[in-house]
Amino acid sequence: MKEFDLIKRFFTEQVVKRKDVVLGIGDDCALIHVSGLNNIAVTTDTLIAGVHFPHDTSPRSIGHKSIAVSLSDLAAMGADPTWLSLALTLPQTDEKWLTEFCAGVFELCEYYNVQLIGGDTTQGPLSITVTAQGLTPEGKHITRSGAKAGDWLYVTGEIGDAALALKHIKGMVTIEDVFKEQILSKLDYPKPRVLAGQALREYASSAIDLSDGLISDLGHICKASGVGANIVMEALPISSAMKDTLGSEQAAQLALSGGDDYELLFTVSDDKKVGMETALANSGIAITCIGQLNASEKITTTLNSKPVPITASGFEHFSSGSINEVE
Amino acid sequence: MKEFDLIKRFFTEQVVKRKDVVLGIGDDCALIHVSGLNNIAVTTDTLIAGVHFPHDTSPRSIGHKSIAVSLSDLAAMGADPTWLSLALTLPQTDEKWLTEFCAGVFELCEYYNVQLIGGDTTQGPLSITVTAQGLTPEGKHITRSGAKAGDWLYVTGEIGDAALALKHIKGMVTIEDVFKEQILSKLDYPKPRVLAGQALREYASSAIDLSDGLISDLGHICKASGVGANIVMEALPISSAMKDTLGSEQAAQLALSGGDDYELLFTVSDDKKVGMETALANSGIAITCIGQLNASEKITTTLNSKPVPITASGFEHFSSGSINEVE
Repeated sequence: MKEFDLIKRFFTEQVVKRKDVVLGIGDDCALIHVSGLNNIAVTTDTLIAGVHFPHDTSPRSIGHKSIAVSLSDLAAMGADPTWLSLALTLPQTDEKWLTEFCAGVFELCEYYNVQLIGGDTTQGPLSITVTAQGLTPEGKHITRSGAKAGDWLYVTGEIGDAALALKHIKGMVTIEDVFKEQILSKLDYPKPRVLAGQALREYASSAIDLSDGLISDLGHICKASGVGANIVMEALPISSAMKDTLGSEQAAQLALSGGDDYELLFTVSDDKKVGMETALANSGIAITCIGQLNASEKITTTLNSKPVPITASGFEHFSSGSINEVE
Repeated sequence: MKEFDLIKRFFTEQVVKRKDVVLGIGDDCALIHVSGLNNIAVTTDTLIAGVHFPHDTSPRSIGHKSIAVSLSDLAAMGADPTWLSLALTLPQTDEKWLTEFCAGVFELCEYYNVQLIGGDTTQGPLSITVTAQGLTPEGKHITRSGAKAGDWLYVTGEIGDAALALKHIKGMVTIEDVFKEQILSKLDYPKPRVLAGQALREYASSAIDLSDGLISDLGHICKASGVGANIVMEALPISSAMKDTLGSEQAAQLALSGGDDYELLFTVSDDKKVGMETALANSGIAITCIGQLNASEKITTTLNSKPVPITASGFEHFSSGSINEVE
């Protein structure tokens, strides 16, 4: 199949057609129109086979995850996702692979009304780079740097499941059959917390999405905001599957350090706490208060009000560094 | 060196600080502000070592070219370049390499007042994906689809030199020493025709940048616009170095098929011809009329008014397909 036919077939037939896209796929550039009332949020992420997902990951999961990680960054700014540019490097042209990959991509695009406006296809070792854009009403975005001592610390959903799934795939733990599908889907099909981010832009003093792990990502908020934090270990939202597989103590430690959850970690000042909790409950989004910020510039953990050590730190490796995310 | 220190050191210290960048590098997303009077042009290109540039290309050239090819797409739309997102995949952390690569990137950024607003760094085989954005006054962009039979066909600069340089590197031809530096720099340091694109948005009926070769890229204009074209071979702007190295006939054939020139190919209606030529002469941009469009839906070539065959066609391969550029 000729290159252009290939691309045309897989990428140009999409359901989403946004009114703000003046010119979509098919010219030297796409053209978009934005009213002066919004800002545009822009984020870029690269996923590489064998680094960011196991080599035998299903193409649909790779497609899903490529988009989800970028939408998750937009969610952490409180942005409405709008446009995507997708650069796909493939070892060879594989129609079946492309069909499933595109299914994963376009499921999320259709759900969130996001339009693919361009990109590139090249031949080489499998990798995907997505630049995702979104809109925030002017002045209403959420940064990492707005947290204050005394603010309450929250997460959406449950944390640590994706790291547990990775341990299972690596043969380091065995998840019981009854939990397996649920846990593996947390790694393969993370749900970007777009609606939570939109709701939070009226309330949160800061936010970040959990990609590197709770301690590591909380560290970014603390550093950017000049604050410290205490995490209440018994409050961490941990799935029954996690507790069943690892026991409570190890489960809590994995929830502190495990990456790839793509839940939102955010802070709220005391006076906005009730309003925020009401708004998110109305939207049906599960959130949990897991601690409070302080002026110490350190991150500490307590269990039943007693200090406990953090045995695992957030991982930092060359292969996952986002330029966006440098302090 | 830790990942974040690495990135911070090389990518966050830049000279360009645009007023429309509300939030640059350092959070989950960058934030930009655009007045409702402009549209945003968006383009994405991936360059892979060994596919889009030889493995032993200098890091400064790789940095330059990564940015230049995207700015060239913006130029072809008549856009003013504004923001870049850069995804860099590197085999290992190499400070010397990064220093030179960044020099190539930031030279162009500073010249065109373009700000790097984000990106990603990952470990893997060398590749670079850039998403570049620019602004066009509403309704003033140039597409591939506006050409009409009777319009005149132009190119900026001289064409074929980059293809000649590649032949030299591959040992297929030998360029005389007196021409070598000039020709190799056309391949390694292509100049995106940003100023020409800006001037042309008042005049051109269509435009494209020459990345795949004149015949191939003219084919995109013809297909998108539903027209044909005749190229006057003796009018092709070919460098003395090309003629000296290949002889006139072969030089002209290489000018038809060779890629990587990043000159602009554009069309102008008869009534706008003088205005356009005056405007571009005032801007000091060399242009050449190389033929005329017709209603045939075919591309033909003539030499001294007699039909001549096209011996080389524009190349089409899996590795260079841009999703943006599907018709």
